[in-house]
This record gives sequence, structure tokens and C-alpha cells, in this order.
Amino acid sequence: MSEAAQTLDGWYALHDFRHIDWTVWKSLTPAEQRRAEDELRGYIAECAQADENKTGSFAFYSIVGQKADFVFVHLRETLEELNELETRFNKTSFADVTIPAHSYVSIVELSNYMAKPGTDPMESPEIVARLKPSMPKAKHICFYPMNKRRSGSDNWYMLSMEERREMMRSHGMIGRSYAGKVKQIITGSVGFDDWEWGVTLFADDALQFKKLVYEMRFDEVSARFGEFGDFYVGNLTDADKFASMLK
Amino acid sequence: MSEAAQTLDGWYALHDFRHIDWTVWKSLTPAEQRRAEDELRGYIAECAQADENKTGSFAFYSIVGQKADFVFVHLRETLEELNELETRFNKTSFADVTIPAHSYVSIVELSNYMAKPGTDPMESPEIVARLKPSMPKAKHICFYPMNKRRSGSDNWYMLSMEERREMMRSHGMIGRSYAGKVKQIITGSVGFDDWEWGVTLFADDALQFKKLVYEMRFDEVSARFGEFGDFYVGNLTDADKFASMLK
Amino acid sequence: MSEAAQTLDGWYALHDFRHIDWTVWKSLTPAEQRRAEDELRGYIAECAQADENKTGSFAFYSIVGQKADFVFVHLRETLEELNELETRFNKTSFADVTIPAHSYVSIVELSNYMAKPGTDPMESPEIVARLKPSMPKAKHICFYPMNKRRSGSDNWYMLSMEERREMMRSHGMIGRSYAGKVKQIITGSVGFDDWEWGVTLFADDALQFKKLVYEMRFDEVSARFGEFGDFYVGNLTDADKFASMLK
Amino acid sequence: MSEAAQTLDGWYALHDFRHIDWTVWKSLTPAEQRRAEDELRGYIAECAQADENKTGSFAFYSIVGQKADFVFVHLRETLEELNELETRFNKTSFADVTIPAHSYVSIVELSNYMAKPGTDPMESPEIVARLKPSMPKAKHICFYPMNKRRSGSDNWYMLSMEERREMMRSHGMIGRSYAGKVKQIITGSVGFDDWEWGVTLFADDALQFKKLVYEMRFDEVSARFGEFGDFYVGNLTDADKFASMLK
Amino acid sequence: MSEAAQTLDGWYALHDFRHIDWTVWKSLTPAEQRRAEDELRGYIAECAQADENKTGSFAFYSIVGQKADFVFVHLRETLEELNELETRFNKTSFADVTIPAHSYVSIVELSNYMAKPGTDPMESPEIVARLKPSMPKAKHICFYPMNKRRSGSDNWYMLSMEERREMMRSHGMIGRSYAGKVKQIITGSVGFDDWEWGVTLFADDALQFKKLVYEMRFDEVSARFGEFGDFYVGNLTDADKFASMLK
Repeated sequence: MSEAAQTLDGWYALHDFRHIDWTVWKSLTPAEQRRAEDELRGYIAECAQADENKTGSFAFYSIVGQKADFVFVHLRETLEELNELETRFNKTSFADVTIPAHSYVSIVELSNYMAKPGTDPMESPEIVARLKPSMPKAKHICFYPMNKRRSGSDNWYMLSMEERREMMRSHGMIGRSYAGKVKQIITGSVGFDDWEWGVTLFADDALQFKKLVYEMRFDEVSARFGEFGDFYVGNLTDADKFASMLK
Repeated sequence: MSEAAQTLDGWYALHDFRHIDWTVWKSLTPAEQRRAEDELRGYIAECAQADENKTGSFAFYSIVGQKADFVFVHLRETLEELNELETRFNKTSFADVTIPAHSYVSIVELSNYMAKPGTDPMESPEIVARLKPSMPKAKHICFYPMNKRRSGSDNWYMLSMEERREMMRSHGMIGRSYAGKVKQIITGSVGFDDWEWGVTLFADDALQFKKLVYEMRFDEVSARFGEFGDFYVGNLTDADKFASMLK
Repeated sequence: MSEAAQTLDGWYALHDFRHIDWTVWKSLTPAEQRRAEDELRGYIAECAQADENKTGSFAFYSIVGQKADFVFVHLRETLEELNELETRFNKTSFADVTIPAHSYVSIVELSNYMAKPGTDPMESPEIVARLKPSMPKAKHICFYPMNKRRSGSDNWYMLSMEERREMMRSHGMIGRSYAGKVKQIITGSVGFDDWEWGVTLFADDALQFKKLVYEMRFDEVSARFGEFGDFYVGNLTDADKFASMLK
Repeated sequence: MSEAAQTLDGWYALHDFRHIDWTVWKSLTPAEQRRAEDELRGYIAECAQADENKTGSFAFYSIVGQKADFVFVHLRETLEELNELETRFNKTSFADVTIPAHSYVSIVELSNYMAKPGTDPMESPEIVARLKPSMPKAKHICFYPMNKRRSGSDNWYMLSMEERREMMRSHGMIGRSYAGKVKQIITGSVGFDDWEWGVTLFADDALQFKKLVYEMRFDEVSARFGEFGDFYVGNLTDADKFASMLK
Repeated sequence: MSEAAQTLDGWYALHDFRHIDWTVWKSLTPAEQRRAEDELRGYIAECAQADENKTGSFAFYSIVGQKADFVFVHLRETLEELNELETRFNKTSFADVTIPAHSYVSIVELSNYMAKPGTDPMESPEIVARLKPSMPKAKHICFYPMNKRRSGSDNWYMLSMEERREMMRSHGMIGRSYAGKVKQIITGSVGFDDWEWGVTLFADDALQFKKLVYEMRFDEVSARFGEFGDFYVGNLTDADKFASMLK
């Protein structure tokens, strides 16, 4: 494969956004609500096992605004496991009070722009940890998909490797200046979903999402070549918080 | 952070547009209607507390046309509070006669284009008041989201700080000529929602919205760089007006 | 306000497109159908009062194709009145057999491109009549929204007033050559709805809509600068015709 | 009217695409199914009368894929007749097992690019036959809408009449090379629906649709100026075939 | 037909994506579920006959994410057969627990860019096998539609045959380097569906989809001329796996 297109790939990712159908929820009897809640707790506990077993990672956030009420983010070794996680949720009685809102299929990816020649990146524990990351319990999540533009003279894919590497280096420096404030997981979705990449950000201060993304927008990579899809922002939740929200 | 990307940020904002499901409403018994109305009144009273406590601000307008029937605008300190306000509404029985129409998540923002060097803007009470504004009870509201264009030679983010500052100054002068007629709250939504900014206008004479936005369209900032989303226009309402509308 | 952006503004306009839910209609008992029809007749009679009182104007057309089954066009002094007209309809039992299809909010507008310097246009009865028009009972209606393009070298808002005036004059001459065949009401919607203008045409021969719009498309204003939304075309109806259609 | 915009216009056209709601269909009792089928047969027979009376034309095709299950194409003298045909169908009990999928309103049109100067085309029986065509019972139908592009240097409407005529001549020659294989009806929809033209093709060998449209795509008229909407492809059906499909 | 537009065409293709309505499924009695499952098994067995009879080919995959739950891919001699396969499925009781998600109509196609002059390709068994392929039982499927761009200076259809052939050769070489890893079926849909081509990929390692599509994106054909629709990715399933998923 040409150097241009080399990436390192880790766990597959499924972002599973859902609405709550409040009218249905309120129409349930207390016993039905209890059962739905119990099955949701069971599902969450099962998903969270992946983090303990180092076989994947799981995040659960409520979403602000009407685009969705919550999101499950699953990282796993295979597409089959992701599919099974969807199905398992759909079989819970809690799923009956939800409506699909949006989903995204991708794979954790590191680009080769920063690769050190002559080394095998998969021997670096740091790189392996970034390809199979444990998602942090930060207070906030931000997700958006993006493309690199191919339009007239602003065509990323017609640039040379050197031009792209140079721009990505400057881009990466902005990212690094947010170290400790924003954790970023890039997932590739060429061949898997409608955009080329997904960006998932985690921060304790949601304002850092805006500062980071806005600062990057002035960077040539984003200014000339970035195309952005819908943005989702949310707050950390868990089975207890979620249950008390439903009460 | 580079000078280009500096903003001052205040309260988070949630614009929550809803349809009324009139068929469901009319199918309710008088007692159910009374209960739904009471819960709506309770919710509105609670939201309005934020203005009294200076912990946020709340606006309630009916929307003209089929895009929505009404909008709640909430300004609050945190995304968690906005999320809770959504949930609290969804739990009311009045929510069962509504259908989500549209929402927008953003944060009150002042750009740094006009900043005076060598001063701390957060020490200016005037600036703090603009970042944590009390929304006026004007007769009309107008909301629309917008982007700065990044297209070929019309790429806002590739301009120098000086070029952008110059254009924003002229833009701001149009805005200022509407002082007393239109109150404007700009909210930033990079990283939070699908457009870069939200614009919320308040006026006693709705025609001033058209005059202002149309005049600005001839200004280079809008003419060359403005991309606009859907527009919503509405009329001031309150619990009593709304209840009599439902009767 | 700069000369460029001056307009004369008259009545606010609401185009209210609706589907009929035939399955619901057919499920009603004859008594329920009669009541729904009576309430529709009452609503229409009330709306038509505005024409008699010269406080507004009302048009009622069936729409051809699946985009909608009929449209109410309301012209009134204020946005509050338009909002009330929507609500009054939604409260009728006939509304329960309809589904919202599309709406448009705007205001009758005359541009200042043809203004005679040194005169007060609002003293001209002819101009006032055009700003507060009584919609004709022509056999057909055509509605579409439009923008002036702002794209690369085809940016209407970057042209000088002189260039725009010159092009609008030639454009207006095509319109005038259809006098007696097509009556045209231009409404401005900057700040009110998603496009900059609405165009509502009335003609006894629907083919004249196509001839007019197609001829204009070769005119530089439309060819280079016109962006067009969805088109709706319909046939004049009234309470009796509509009732017999439902039978 | 300027030469550029002259067209010859014949019958109005309504393409009425519908889904079948199979779940509703299967929930009907045999007697209800029989009644629905009978009313559909009655409707089809009535529509087909237009062909016998030379007052219009009617086509009925099933559609392949999920975009629709079938299409009625009606050609008639007036928009009122088209509207009435819709209503008559909606009143049948068969309509209750269908869901609107898409529709298109237009008018059979011949451009004046090939007109012979000094002749009255409406005196030519051949031209009248093309403006008021009887749709063939070909095995397959293909429908798509299209625009002529107005974008930067590819602006059809800014070309001279000579340039357009020259390109259309070459375009027409491709069309003519499919004579006997594909019958083509062009309908104009400027002022009537969202695109400028509708193209309805009939062929016994569906592959000829692809060959024709693909070959034309290399022609400058399409390559530089053609913008295409959604494509629908279908198979000839009739009341008996359709009934046995529903069994 | 001009050389430019020549293709070889084989079996017609229908990609039929469906959602499962889990709430409906769970509401069925065990007997109803058994019947639905039996009818699904019968349908699948019948579709799979085509492969045995060499009269077509059938693939059945579950889809990851919310875009769909599963896809049937049918290759057959005629559009009528595809239509009948849809109908046959819609009549099963299992269809009642599904909701249409997306479909695509096309025909297996080989471009003539690589044709050897002076030979009749249809006499080559290898070419016939590629036009009437038996879809492999690979672990994963990927589907997306695409266009060749016609935009300003990036207009594929304005290039000479030589330029296109040269670019397609280099493009094909990337494809060939994935031989043994990814099997690719190109279907043409000009005149049949909304994009010009459909691409269906099969691989045992889903990551190869990303590697292939991403590497191609740097190739001039894709970089300058490729426009891509929505991507679907899925996992091989069969009647037993599917039934156990539903349990």
C-alpha cells in the first residue's frame, strides 16, 4: 500500500445515539418501569465488563438537546461484537421506550504522518494503548464526523505526502496544547460510514471543546480542508443517575 | 491560544422548539387538560426563577408557522442544568401533547475583535452583563444559526486577524445603528451544535429583524462569508396567554 | 439605513400548506364529518372577513400532487394575527383530519429599485394597494421561495446599487409583459423564514406561470443570481367545492 | 416573449408514486380486500378511458425497490382534472392501504430549438401527437427530473440561443439513435414543480434506459449542464397483474 | 453507441436494506414468532435456490449501526424477477416486523476501459462469470453508491477517452492489489437509481474495506472525480444465525 494511505487501526467503534420515548415510558406500570430499568442496568454492567477485561471500552453519556437523549459508545475487537451489542440492547424491554436517533461505525485510527521511520509502531505500548483506549470518565463528551475536502483547488487528496504531513504537524500541535484538558479519540470510517473520520472528545470542562475546535478551524488543515457533520455534546451519566433521571 | 480564536464565554444556551400535537390535546379529558396546563405553569414558573435569582435566564415565545408551536430559551451556567431542564419538561404531562421540533445548544459569546488591549474584560460589569444576559420581554423573537464560509477565495478562516477585525467593525456598526430597536444575543456553538453561531434577536417591532438582517447581508462579512440556517420567528407569550390559546 | 437595503413593507403573510389524512377522514362518522366540515366552513368564512374589512386578505387553493392537499394564504397586519389564525384552525375538528405539510412566513414587500427620488411612496395609493393587496380569485396559484446567490463571482450582495438596479429593471420588464395574465405578490422573508423572498403568482391560465418563470430564467438576475426552492401549484377552491371534494 | 424561452406545451402530467402498506393490507378481511381491489379496478378502468377518448393518457407501472411500489402517470388537459384524479383515488378504499411516496407535476413540452422558421407547429399533426401523446404499453418505465445547471462558467441560461441550439441538436441526435428502442416524453415543470423538466422513458428492454442516459452523460449538454434528481424504474402492470401480486 | 459509453452488462441487482421493528417483534406470541421465522426461512431458502440454479445470486448480511438491521442482495436476469422477490418478501408475516430502510437498483457492469480490441468479450467465460457472479460467503459486506464528478474543471465526462482510460488503469491496479482480500462487484445504475454506480465489496477482514477505499481516495480518479453516497457495512448471517439473534 502506498505510504499515503497507511494507518494504524485498533478497536472498532459504535456510537449508538437514542431518543427516549417519554410518552411510552410514562405509560408503563411501575412494575414494567422497574423491569425496564433492571434490564438497562444489566446491559450497562455487561458493557462495562469490557473495560475491566481489557477487551474493549464502554461510555455512557446523556445528550443535550433534541438530537438524542443518550449515547452508548462501544469499542470492541470486531464488527460482530458491535452488532451483538446492538442486538442485545434491542432485546431489553428498556429498548422499547427508546427510538434510534443516530449511529456511527468506525475504527480507532492513528495516521502515519508522525510515524518514525524504521520502527514497528505496534511494538510501542503507548501506541497500542492509543489504538485500544480505555475511554475516560470525563464529565463531557463531544462527537462529530468529518471529511477532508476534495473541491477545486482545495483538494486534500491531491496534495503531496509532504504537504499533508506539514499541515498535520501544525494541526497536531494545537491538539497537544489541550493535553490534560481534552482527550481525543480519532476513528476512521472510510468504507464503514458516511464520513471519513469520527472525532470523539472528552473533557471535564465542556468549554474546552469549543476552544479546541474553534482554534483548529483557523488552522489550514481545517480552514481549507475540513468538512464537518453534526455535533453532539453530552454529560457523563451512569445507571444510577440515569434511573433517577427517569423517575 | 492564538489571538484569532479568543472569545469570552458566558452562560450556556438551549433553544428548545416544540410542536403541539393538537389531536392528542383535544383527546384529553378536561381534568387531564387542567393537569397538563398546571404542570406547564409549574415548569414555566420554575424556569423563570433563574431570572430572579440571576442564575440564568428564560424566554418563552410562540412560533409563527409550522416549524414549531413554541420555543423555550434557557440560559444557564452548565450543560448539566440545561439537560435537567429538558428532562424536567419531558416528565410533565404537558410534554405528552408536544413533539420535539428542533433544538440548539450553544454558549453566550463575545468575540475578541473589539477587545481593548491591556484590560481584563471580565472586570467590566458591562461585559459580564452581556455574557450573562437577562433576556428582555420583547414582543418578538428571531433565531437563526450561521457559519462563516470556507469556500475557495471566500474563506473567512484564511483571512488575517486584521482583515477579520476590520470587517467585523463595519458589521458591528450596522448592529449598533439598531440599538434600542433590536437586542441581539450571539451564542457560539462550535463543538456543541451543527453551526458555528446562533443569533437570537429580540424586538418589539418584528419588521426590525428583517431590516437588520437584510441590511447586514450587503455587508462584506455576510455577503461573502455568511452562511445561514433556518429562521424562526415568534411572539412573546406567557403561561396565561398560552393557556388561553389552548382553550 | 443604507439605500441598498431599503424596502417598503406591507402586510405579513402566512402560507399554510396542509395534507388531508384521508384514512382518518373516512373513519369519521357522518355526523363527525358534518361537524368537521361545518367548522372548516366557519373558519373560511371568518378568514374571508379580512378581505371585506380591508384588514387583510385570504386565499384558499387546492394543491396538485402529493406535496400538500390545500393551502391557506393569510395576509394580515401583524405576526400575532397570523399566529392566532393558525391556532384557530388547529382548534377546529377539521384540523384533526389534516397534517401540516409546509408553511412560509414573510411580509409583502416592494423593493426600492424603482423608487422615484424626492417622493414619499406611502402617499401613493397605488403603492399602498400593492403593499396591502387583496388577493385575486384567479383560477390558479403558484408559490416558490427564492434567494439571491452569493457564490464566488456570482454574488448579488457584492454588486453596486447601480448594477442591481439595472438588472432589476430588465427583470421587471419581463414581469410587466405578463400584466393581465399573471398577478405577482413578492414577500420578503429575510429574518422570518429560510429563504430571502417568497413569490406568489395568480393566473387564470396556469401555463402562464411556466412561461413567466422560464422566460425570467434567461434574464441575468435569475440566470446568475436566482436560487429557487420548492414550487407549489394549485387550483382555486372554496368551501362548497372543497366539501364536495371530500364527499 | 424572447425566442429563448419559447416552448410548445401539451397535456399536463401528474406522476403519482405510492407505497403499499402491506401490514394494513394483510390486516384486512377477505371481503375488505375484495372491495379495495374492486375499487382499484374501477379507478384504473376510469383512468384508462382517457386513452380511448383521446382526452388524455394513463400509465400504470410497478416500481422496483423501496422508493415506491407503483406509479400512476396521468396526462390530461388541465390541472383541475389531475387534481380530481388524485382525489378520486384517495376516496377509494384501496388508497387506505397506500402511502404517498412522491409526485411530480409538469406539462408535455417540445422545445423550440428545432423549430422550422415560418411554420405554425400546431398545424403539424406529428407535433400535436407528440404534445398529446398516448403513452405506450412498453414493458418498462424510467422517470427522473432534471435541471440545466447555472453554476460559475457552466451556466446554461447565460449561453446564447445559438450555442444552446447547437448543443441540443447533438443531444437530440443521441436520442434519435434510440428510436424504436426508447420512447421519450419530456415534460416542463418550471413554475409547477421543483425541477425544470421531467423525463419519462418507455422501453421493452430496461437496459436501453441505462445505455441512453449514460451515453448522453458524455454529451456536453449533460456533462456540463445536466443536474439530475432521483431515478425511478418500473415494470408494466395492469389490474389483473396487480391483483395477483396482492394475493 | 460511442465508444465512451460502452459497458458490458450482466445480472440486475437489488440491494434491499431493512430495519427490524423490535417492539412489534416482541409483541408477537411465540406461535406468531415461529410462523414469522418459518416464513423468513422459506424465503431465504427460495432466494438461495438461484445460486444453485445459476439463475442468479443471493446474499444475506446483518448491518452494523442504525441505518439498517439487515440486507438482502439479489442478482437476477430481469427487473421483473427483482420486483417479484420484493413482493414475495412483503407477503411473508416476517415482513410485518420489518421497516424498509433503503434500497438500490442497478445492474452488474464491466466498463470497456480495459477491453481488448477485436475480441468479443461475451465469449470469454471469465467475463461472463464476472457479469453473472456468484456472491461469495465472505464474513463482511460493504456497499456504497458513487458518481463521477462533473464540477468546473473536475468534470469526468468532459475528459477524453484516453484520459479516462489512463486513470481507470491506475485505479484498477489498486483494486487488483487487494485480490484475495476483497472481492468487488461494480453495478451500474444510470437510469435505474440515484447514483451512477453501486460498489459492493466482500471480505473476511472488514479492515480491508477501509484500506482499499482509503488508498483509492488518493488516486486521481477518486480524489478529483469521486462522489460517494452512504456506506453500509455488515456481517455474514444466515437463517440459523438470524433466528438465534431474534431469540
